Amino acid sequence: MTIVQDFPEASARYKTDMAQTIENSLKTYGMRIDDYLKKLLPVRDDYLSEPIWYHMESGGKRMRPALCLIVCEAMGGNPDEAVPFAAAVEVLHNMFLMHDDIEDGDTMRRDKPTVWVKYGTANAINAGDYLLGRAYHAILKSNLSFEKKLKLLDIFTITYEKTVEGQALDINWRGSTDFTIEHYLQIVELKTAYYLTCGMVGGAVVAGRSDNVIEKIWELGKSMGPAFQIRDDLIDLTQGKGRGGVIGSDIKEGKPSFLYAYTLSQAGAGDRERLIEIMLKPRESTSSRVVNEVITLYNKYDAINYSQKYAEGLVEKAFKIIEEIPVEDKTTFREIARFMAQRTA
Amino acid sequence: MTIVQDFPEASARYKTDMAQTIENSLKTYGMRIDDYLKKLLPVRDDYLSEPIWYHMESGGKRMRPALCLIVCEAMGGNPDEAVPFAAAVEVLHNMFLMHDDIEDGDTMRRDKPTVWVKYGTANAINAGDYLLGRAYHAILKSNLSFEKKLKLLDIFTITYEKTVEGQALDINWRGSTDFTIEHYLQIVELKTAYYLTCGMVGGAVVAGRSDNVIEKIWELGKSMGPAFQIRDDLIDLTQGKGRGGVIGSDIKEGKPSFLYAYTLSQAGAGDRERLIEIMLKPRESTSSRVVNEVITLYNKYDAINYSQKYAEGLVEKAFKIIEEIPVEDKTTFREIARFMAQRTA
Repeated sequence: MTIVQDFPEASARYKTDMAQTIENSLKTYGMRIDDYLKKLLPVRDDYLSEPIWYHMESGGKRMRPALCLIVCEAMGGNPDEAVPFAAAVEVLHNMFLMHDDIEDGDTMRRDKPTVWVKYGTANAINAGDYLLGRAYHAILKSNLSFEKKLKLLDIFTITYEKTVEGQALDINWRGSTDFTIEHYLQIVELKTAYYLTCGMVGGAVVAGRSDNVIEKIWELGKSMGPAFQIRDDLIDLTQGKGRGGVIGSDIKEGKPSFLYAYTLSQAGAGDRERLIEIMLKPRESTSSRVVNEVITLYNKYDAINYSQKYAEGLVEKAFKIIEEIPVEDKTTFREIARFMAQRTA
Repeated sequence: MTIVQDFPEASARYKTDMAQTIENSLKTYGMRIDDYLKKLLPVRDDYLSEPIWYHMESGGKRMRPALCLIVCEAMGGNPDEAVPFAAAVEVLHNMFLMHDDIEDGDTMRRDKPTVWVKYGTANAINAGDYLLGRAYHAILKSNLSFEKKLKLLDIFTITYEKTVEGQALDINWRGSTDFTIEHYLQIVELKTAYYLTCGMVGGAVVAGRSDNVIEKIWELGKSMGPAFQIRDDLIDLTQGKGRGGVIGSDIKEGKPSFLYAYTLSQAGAGDRERLIEIMLKPRESTSSRVVNEVITLYNKYDAINYSQKYAEGLVEKAFKIIEEIPVEDKTTFREIARFMAQRTA
């Protein structure tokens, strides 16, 4: 099987020499977010706190919120002022995971039973709803001018809505027999791009940057988001996605990946039919043998290689967009892009 | 069986002579809300619009949003400016109904299958999530000063959070053997009072009224909310709640009503045990005979009469709070209270 690589070409070409790497900043800022989260979502013995912390403590790298603080600081803003918004982004992320796990029928996340499995569907829906309220609360209570606060609320609401729109397509196109790369990219732009980017956009707003800067960061997300997601799809075939180390969760769960969309577009009638048939199987009846059959099909049509190249192309594009962001020092954005091209959430 | 009456004593005592009754205003304003809702939630052939309009068109009197406009106008504000907030309140209401129906396992609402039954749980959760995004969008886009907009967002977020907190108690206390009137009132204050009142509070904000006025309106809700809910509980025993005209849905579904809480507090050990046993039964096995058995128990301990009186007391209290609202003309509030004492949502 082809081993998934980072995107060495694109990232090496744009390598920078920042003394403090993004990786280190992520750790430091991640801890600041954690401290704030403990105030925003007090650890109590109640029906909301328990499922929420069961979920929130089970890992997650606080990557999105940390990027918010990094961008804010790099743009001359005070990252302390951005902490509530950054935390709101993290809370939103967790709210979506909680609801998505119910919607997708996922029983495991980060090697633990999902919230709905442990606390029931009613509590999982409601705890997710509560998280969203807390996210808005955080932004509303942040120590910023009325104008900045409303801008952040706007950005947050757009991100939230786009993600939900993407989820609507994801839910209803699953199992569609004419699923294309265009469908895939449409879902990913809505479901991944906004929400990967909105922290950075918020950081720029807190730093008082212009709408031109903000537009370019959104645009950056539209390249980085799909690159990130395609890489996630590839990783599912090599390392698994933290569902008990199982390889090929997407195949088992019938989640249409970039590889699936591409293979469908290339395969002959027989292979197409077989592929669709497997994707429609309930997960219990998708054995490892069947997963391997799909991977063999992906290899037959060179889908893994194509996906790698496609994602590389998106990363290249992202670096070009970075050059167009109207700020003096683009180092931080380059570092972030390089980091994202090499890691997953 | 005791027939449920309006609260004639309290309401007659405070009768006013407004030429245009609240009932008429509700109709006119309800139509304005409907027009706005069609813009906010475009009727399209997509995966979000379809379940949303399936749900939204199935009735609902737009009472909460209309009260927002009525209060705004009565306080000298321009109701047009309050329309987006009023619509947001209506959207919130529908979002909660959609999620609650899943959480409660309710299969019928307003004599039609609920959204999750018709479109699946995944679409029902996601369409509910989308509604919340649209509600925030409406408030953010309303044509108001930054300050008023942020105040409205605050009111909306508080209401949203309190309702979710109430739902958490409701989900987890169901079937509790030591359910008391205090439990009941705690749930209702969180789950009903804020959200019945927030439209009126928003109307006052748009009209530029002070925080003192706003505080008193919130307080009013804390009497009217439970009065309204207790009346709803009583109506379930006489007219049913629009679930195919079935009487005693709360009993079938094991939803602890005021009557249930009161009867538990009064009944002897044998009756208590039997009552709890019935409430814990799955709804399929709660026959009409069993429903009648519960009603007989309620009558045995005079629960229906007590509930009527208790609600009357709350309505009395509401009228007293109205006298303390620091506005010149309290007529509108009196009319609203009178109206709410006589109708259900």
